[in-house]
Amino acid sequence: MPYVNIKITPDGATPEKKAELIAGVTELLQRVLNKNPATTVVVIDEVNTDNWGIGGESVTVIRERAAKGGA
Amino acid sequence: MPYVNIKITPDGATPEKKAELIAGVTELLQRVLNKNPATTVVVIDEVNTDNWGIGGESVTVIRERAAKGGA
Amino acid sequence: MPYVNIKITPDGATPEKKAELIAGVTELLQRVLNKNPATTVVVIDEVNTDNWGIGGESVTVIRERAAKGGA
Amino acid sequence: MPYVNIKITPDGATPEKKAELIAGVTELLQRVLNKNPATTVVVIDEVNTDNWGIGGESVTVIRERAAKGGA
Amino acid sequence: MPYVNIKITPDGATPEKKAELIAGVTELLQRVLNKNPATTVVVIDEVNTDNWGIGGESVTVIRERAAKGGA
Amino acid sequence: MPYVNIKITPDGATPEKKAELIAGVTELLQRVLNKNPATTVVVIDEVNTDNWGIGGESVTVIRERAAKGGA
Repeated sequence: MPYVNIKITPDGATPEKKAELIAGVTELLQRVLNKNPATTVVVIDEVNTDNWGIGGESVTVIRERAAKGGA
Repeated sequence: MPYVNIKITPDGATPEKKAELIAGVTELLQRVLNKNPATTVVVIDEVNTDNWGIGGESVTVIRERAAKGGA
Repeated sequence: MPYVNIKITPDGATPEKKAELIAGVTELLQRVLNKNPATTVVVIDEVNTDNWGIGGESVTVIRERAAKGGA
Repeated sequence: MPYVNIKITPDGATPEKKAELIAGVTELLQRVLNKNPATTVVVIDEVNTDNWGIGGESVTVIRERAAKGGA
Repeated sequence: MPYVNIKITPDGATPEKKAELIAGVTELLQRVLNKNPATTVVVIDEVNTDNWGIGGESVTVIRERAAKGGA
Repeated sequence: MPYVNIKITPDGATPEKKAELIAGVTELLQRVLNKNPATTVVVIDEVNTDNWGIGGESVTVIRERAAKGGA
C-alpha cells in the first residue's frame, strides 16, 4: 500500500531507467517492510533545472557556472 | 481551507472533466466537513504512463502487455 | 490508479467523516473519469492550525482574532 | 535540510523570477530557523490554469469570466 | 539532488527499518541514474490507517473486516 | 493562489517562528510574482529526524555521530 514520489531532473531518465526505479523501490519496500507490491504506487516527477534549487540557486545557474570552470 | 492534490494519468482528462473533479471534490469537503469552498484549493497533476508505477511496473508496460492479450 | 492527497485541519475529522471523504472522492473519480476504484489511493493529512497559513497568517492567529470579535 | 515545494500558475514565472523565489525562500529559512542553505532544496511546480481550482472552479473559468466583466 | 517521499502506514516501521529504506532508495538512485547520494533527500511520512484509503475504504475498515474473516 | 509546502525537522520551530515563515513566504510571492496574499496557502510539515534522510542516512544517525565527535 505504500505511495512513493520521486522527484528528479530529467537528464538521462529514459523510460527504461524509470522502469528500473519503479521496480527497485517496490522491491525495497517489500524486502524491508513486507509491503505488498501489488498495491505499491510510484510516481516520478521530472523537474526542469530552472525549477530546482539547492543552496539558494537554481540547478541551471549551478551547472552554467560549473561548465565555465567555476566552483 | 482544504488543499487537495489529485494525480491521474492524462487519458481523457479534458478541461471539462477536470472542472467536474474540482467542483465535485470542493462540494464533497463542504458537505462532509463543512469546509468553506471559497478557500478550498485543488491541484490536478497529470502524470504520463512512463512515470507511474504500480505492482513494480510502469503503466506503459502494463498497458502494452494488456494490448497484446497478456495478463 | 489515481492518487489523492487531502490536507485539512483536524477539527471534526472523525474516522467516520474521513471514511466518507475516502468513499466520496473515489466514487467521484470513477464517475467523472472512469478510474478503477480498486487502485484509487487516498491519503488524508491532518495539519494543525499553527502549521497552516493563509493570507500571510496562521489559522491559529486568524481564529484567535475572530474569537475576540476582530475581522 | 528543509524541503520547500512551491506550486504556482506559470504566468510571468521567468527563470529570473524563479531564481528569486529559490534565493528568497532559502534565505528566509536561514534567517528564521537557522537552516543550512547548502542543503535547502526548493522545487517549483508550474500548474496550468485548467488544473488549478479554487472556490469550486478552475482558474481558467474564473479568468474567462473576469475578462468578460463578470464577478 | 533527488527528493523522495515515501508514505506508509506505521506498522513495524522501526527507526532501523526506516534507515534501511533511506539507504536503499539513495543507493538505487545512484545505481540507476548516477545521482549524487550526498544531496539525495528522503522524507518518510507515516500515515495512520484511518487516513489511508484504497478501493473506497479506509485501511482501518479493510483490516477490521479481514480480522473478522471477511473478504 | 500559490500553494507552498515547507518540510522541516521540528527543532526550534515554535508557533512564532512558523508564523514568521508563513508571513515571509507569502510576502516573497507577492513581491516577486505579484501573487495575491489573500489566497496564498502555506502548509508546514514537521518531520522527525528518524524519518528524514540525506546522504543515505537518517538525520538521527548523522546527529548522533556528530555528537560523538565523528564526521
